[in-house]
Amino acid sequence: MQATTIGIMTPDRAALVDLIDRHRPGWSLEQAFYVDPAIFEFERELWFPRQWSLVAHASEVAEKGRYIVRQLFGEEIIVVRFGDAEEEVAAYYNVCTHRGSRLCTKDGRGRLLVCPYHAWSYRLTGELQTRQEVPDNVDPEALGLHRVPTRCVGGLVICGLEEASLPDVQPLVDALDGALRDTGIDHARIAARKSYPTKANWKLVLENFFECYHCQPSHPEYFRVNAHEPWTTLASGPEGLDKVKYGFSRRSIFGGRKTQSNDGQPVSCLMGGRSAYDGSETAFSLGRLSFVYAVSDHVTLFQMIPRSATETDVIVTWLVDRDADADIDTDPITWMWDVTTVQDKKLVEDNASGVASTAYRPGPYTAREGDSSFFVQTYLADMRSLITGERTGAPAWQSPIKDCGLQHGEAAEAV
Amino acid sequence: MQATTIGIMTPDRAALVDLIDRHRPGWSLEQAFYVDPAIFEFERELWFPRQWSLVAHASEVAEKGRYIVRQLFGEEIIVVRFGDAEEEVAAYYNVCTHRGSRLCTKDGRGRLLVCPYHAWSYRLTGELQTRQEVPDNVDPEALGLHRVPTRCVGGLVICGLEEASLPDVQPLVDALDGALRDTGIDHARIAARKSYPTKANWKLVLENFFECYHCQPSHPEYFRVNAHEPWTTLASGPEGLDKVKYGFSRRSIFGGRKTQSNDGQPVSCLMGGRSAYDGSETAFSLGRLSFVYAVSDHVTLFQMIPRSATETDVIVTWLVDRDADADIDTDPITWMWDVTTVQDKKLVEDNASGVASTAYRPGPYTAREGDSSFFVQTYLADMRSLITGERTGAPAWQSPIKDCGLQHGEAAEAV
Amino acid sequence: MQATTIGIMTPDRAALVDLIDRHRPGWSLEQAFYVDPAIFEFERELWFPRQWSLVAHASEVAEKGRYIVRQLFGEEIIVVRFGDAEEEVAAYYNVCTHRGSRLCTKDGRGRLLVCPYHAWSYRLTGELQTRQEVPDNVDPEALGLHRVPTRCVGGLVICGLEEASLPDVQPLVDALDGALRDTGIDHARIAARKSYPTKANWKLVLENFFECYHCQPSHPEYFRVNAHEPWTTLASGPEGLDKVKYGFSRRSIFGGRKTQSNDGQPVSCLMGGRSAYDGSETAFSLGRLSFVYAVSDHVTLFQMIPRSATETDVIVTWLVDRDADADIDTDPITWMWDVTTVQDKKLVEDNASGVASTAYRPGPYTAREGDSSFFVQTYLADMRSLITGERTGAPAWQSPIKDCGLQHGEAAEAV
Repeated sequence: MQATTIGIMTPDRAALVDLIDRHRPGWSLEQAFYVDPAIFEFERELWFPRQWSLVAHASEVAEKGRYIVRQLFGEEIIVVRFGDAEEEVAAYYNVCTHRGSRLCTKDGRGRLLVCPYHAWSYRLTGELQTRQEVPDNVDPEALGLHRVPTRCVGGLVICGLEEASLPDVQPLVDALDGALRDTGIDHARIAARKSYPTKANWKLVLENFFECYHCQPSHPEYFRVNAHEPWTTLASGPEGLDKVKYGFSRRSIFGGRKTQSNDGQPVSCLMGGRSAYDGSETAFSLGRLSFVYAVSDHVTLFQMIPRSATETDVIVTWLVDRDADADIDTDPITWMWDVTTVQDKKLVEDNASGVASTAYRPGPYTAREGDSSFFVQTYLADMRSLITGERTGAPAWQSPIKDCGLQHGEAAEAV
Repeated sequence: MQATTIGIMTPDRAALVDLIDRHRPGWSLEQAFYVDPAIFEFERELWFPRQWSLVAHASEVAEKGRYIVRQLFGEEIIVVRFGDAEEEVAAYYNVCTHRGSRLCTKDGRGRLLVCPYHAWSYRLTGELQTRQEVPDNVDPEALGLHRVPTRCVGGLVICGLEEASLPDVQPLVDALDGALRDTGIDHARIAARKSYPTKANWKLVLENFFECYHCQPSHPEYFRVNAHEPWTTLASGPEGLDKVKYGFSRRSIFGGRKTQSNDGQPVSCLMGGRSAYDGSETAFSLGRLSFVYAVSDHVTLFQMIPRSATETDVIVTWLVDRDADADIDTDPITWMWDVTTVQDKKLVEDNASGVASTAYRPGPYTAREGDSSFFVQTYLADMRSLITGERTGAPAWQSPIKDCGLQHGEAAEAV
Repeated sequence: MQATTIGIMTPDRAALVDLIDRHRPGWSLEQAFYVDPAIFEFERELWFPRQWSLVAHASEVAEKGRYIVRQLFGEEIIVVRFGDAEEEVAAYYNVCTHRGSRLCTKDGRGRLLVCPYHAWSYRLTGELQTRQEVPDNVDPEALGLHRVPTRCVGGLVICGLEEASLPDVQPLVDALDGALRDTGIDHARIAARKSYPTKANWKLVLENFFECYHCQPSHPEYFRVNAHEPWTTLASGPEGLDKVKYGFSRRSIFGGRKTQSNDGQPVSCLMGGRSAYDGSETAFSLGRLSFVYAVSDHVTLFQMIPRSATETDVIVTWLVDRDADADIDTDPITWMWDVTTVQDKKLVEDNASGVASTAYRPGPYTAREGDSSFFVQTYLADMRSLITGERTGAPAWQSPIKDCGLQHGEAAEAV
């Protein structure tokens, strides 16, 4: 990480630790955590570089030389397939090492990555190809692209900002790869994608996603289909700053529906080698900011991308089997999560608006918001460790009373 | 007031006091007072919480359960009628005490105020109605809405941000309630409302409003109707940081006009039990940021709402008698103040633009700008007292030569 | 310069000097120089006030009393002709000395400059004309307009922010006046003008302008017409903080073209008393931010106007002889530089986008970017001197290998 220091105010670490220590477990965060750009800067420096995030579906870089431009915590990256083997996907910061220009301005395919400014070119594996123009006293080997740590898991591409800060991702891969493949994600294609730019801090977006207490009043469509059956946890990753977080759980769709459609009827062909619609939903969490929901005939991917202290992009991608009809009607596929995410965007933005008032005070989480409360505690513990250097261990999860599965997003987080 | 402190620069109180002490009486303010967000923060912390402001006409909350969402110094508040008696109006910060969401997203009516997020509900008197979900160790009595001090006066609703900081409003109520009722405000309805968002510091908006030196060159329509007759002060509140400011004065409309219309002819039915068009204009100031102008057949309300160091909302509301025709033509009613406020918005924005130049230096107020000059001095005296804790007394008003009443807004301020 | 100091963070001069001293000659700048508002503030305070810039063509203030409103480093200025002699042009900050309003809101003509707010008026030579309203204890002689240093050179008007900080402009006038007149600029009129607001630091705009290494990959139209012939330097100003910078050079247009049009054919009548199309291009630099390119039948003016750390306006003006047809087709005249500047805007904005990444590191300039590299070194030397007060002398220019004139903008800079 490179910091701009001229004239930037010194962030007050002691004040932040005080603010963390003032937190009452079971209550929402102090206002500053939801609005203060200085805390976002701390997160950008300390917390985001430790997170693995979903950045693409493997079909987006299907052939060798195919590259795509994507966002990762406000950084623009290039994801590129450099070889034919499934794992041969790499990612780079979208920055030319010559004069710093964006290297790729849109998705494409080629044998080389060529900068539009002065035509410097790079191999798909990141090394500088251009040699003749490089000054004599400069080592061209030192001018390769800046790499973004990348792994493939079950048909998905995940990345993190910094090799040195990231936890080992292998436990996540070991735990989820097979289960993700079972859903058919590795044999899927993208049916639809939609972005929901949300004027709210990313933690408000997650707190909303981690509880379904609000589903009955606010999500009639979602509530018609879900949220009446309990989740069964099948695997879950450890808490703790230095460990990669993951989750895997399953529940029945409500009312005997075959899939999560309005009428319960199929919306696409079966995925993952299934022979029948099984009426269940499988949830995965990949790190703390990416979520996957799979039913028999489609899969929904969620990416939460913090942009600033008060802006978060939520990107939702719907997958179907790659052999589904090319002209399949996507409206029934996107219906539930689109209507629900539009509602959540409004709820979270109203939450952000209220939280910005001088009258806002932390409020109590109810029993039905246990996962939101736990997330907040875990986040604070992480931040405290990162600032002070003390590793105090992850907070212990104390399950609130879970009545009848009124949670939606949290399934993927539950332990 | 709750302050976000992580990484926010320490405001330099000593530098501000120096800047105040550098002011030459009779000259406009140093640039920083018109552009610096840090000074706006001081005002937000120290000066705004001491001000009573007009927030609504009583007809906007006519029946029990009716609530409206309004702005007060950048805070969103809910004004609600909780009982049938005229005084039974309350206001709350628009913040749910559960997770901080906006509680009301638009005006409405109900027995309870219900949060759209998790359906927590509140009584019209502010107490939390929802009980069953509140965690056992939390006192629901402590989760009532955050109150906004509110008073009704002569058919108007006025509010202030903080009980502890506000001056006693009773002298204003005693002085103005009867006179406001005499104009018929308490028997009126809203005919029109218009917002004039102005890209300028709120003090530039007030300095413009407090003098009519600019009327002849800049307001031909206003000048045709007004500004040739002197004001008679009928009542005026004391100066001083700890006292509520008010004013009440009267003058004749120019040229024998019955009312402030383009042709001088009536634009609506008579108000306030009048039996004839009296050809006079009555002006009121309620606090430092709200103004009322009443003529025989309509009333104009002004709300000046500071939004940031360089943004101020001016909201103008036109009232007519509640028994006036439902389909009354409002164009002749709004004509004078609309055309004038559009002109003032442009003048003040051009003023703000010039003041932001490095070439700006404080300039001398002329004799015809005495109220603007006095406002500036009073403001500085207030700010100095608030920062240093010293109460030095209000500046003495030294009337400039008032030739022929070329002032418009200042009538309500004159002592 | 007047600074707003309340709550503004103290700029860290030592950190800036460290950052300057870390620079490796021949490499692009550290990120902070391209993105940090605090460094832009340093530039605004220290560097911009030392620069002369092109602000108008003389034809824009052709008759006595004609005035125009223009931008100079984010300041709005009024340029006005106060007399009939060619040199009788003055400029003022667009700020009324009464209450600080913008004085002129648009271009116009008059015997006086009259403020729209309170009708204070000023003579064309800047003195306050209004006297009767000025308070008795105020000297009206001290209320003249704030002057902007102004010179006319060869039909162009150049200005700088501050008399005290500007270098003596006479060497530039002596060196360029005749040559500019030879091109016919003093007998020209404006055929077209276009603004290219560019979301990039002004130094990225200049670095782009000072090299033509990118012309072959990025400017096919420009490259078809130019960039194959070497420049001949005819005059060039000294480097150094306290000296005015200028340049004057010439080259042939490519492929026997008569002028810089798509087909090489004339686009307007001959300028500057020429008797034939000479197939050459003459380049001038006036200070560090203004450039002139003249061919036989038209002239192109460039103004680079820094607006913020990440915004720069590029204004391009095309001149033709004042006797050219009034309804001349301007498309062939503007073609080359318009298509090229649109391309450069995109290139520079992509450069700015990449430079803002945490992955950006300074990269090596190639031999073909010698003028960009030299500009950067000169800039750093200037800034270091201005901050520390040490005058260390200008960096020595070491010409990189110039193969075949692949530069475009830098011609005007070359020594």
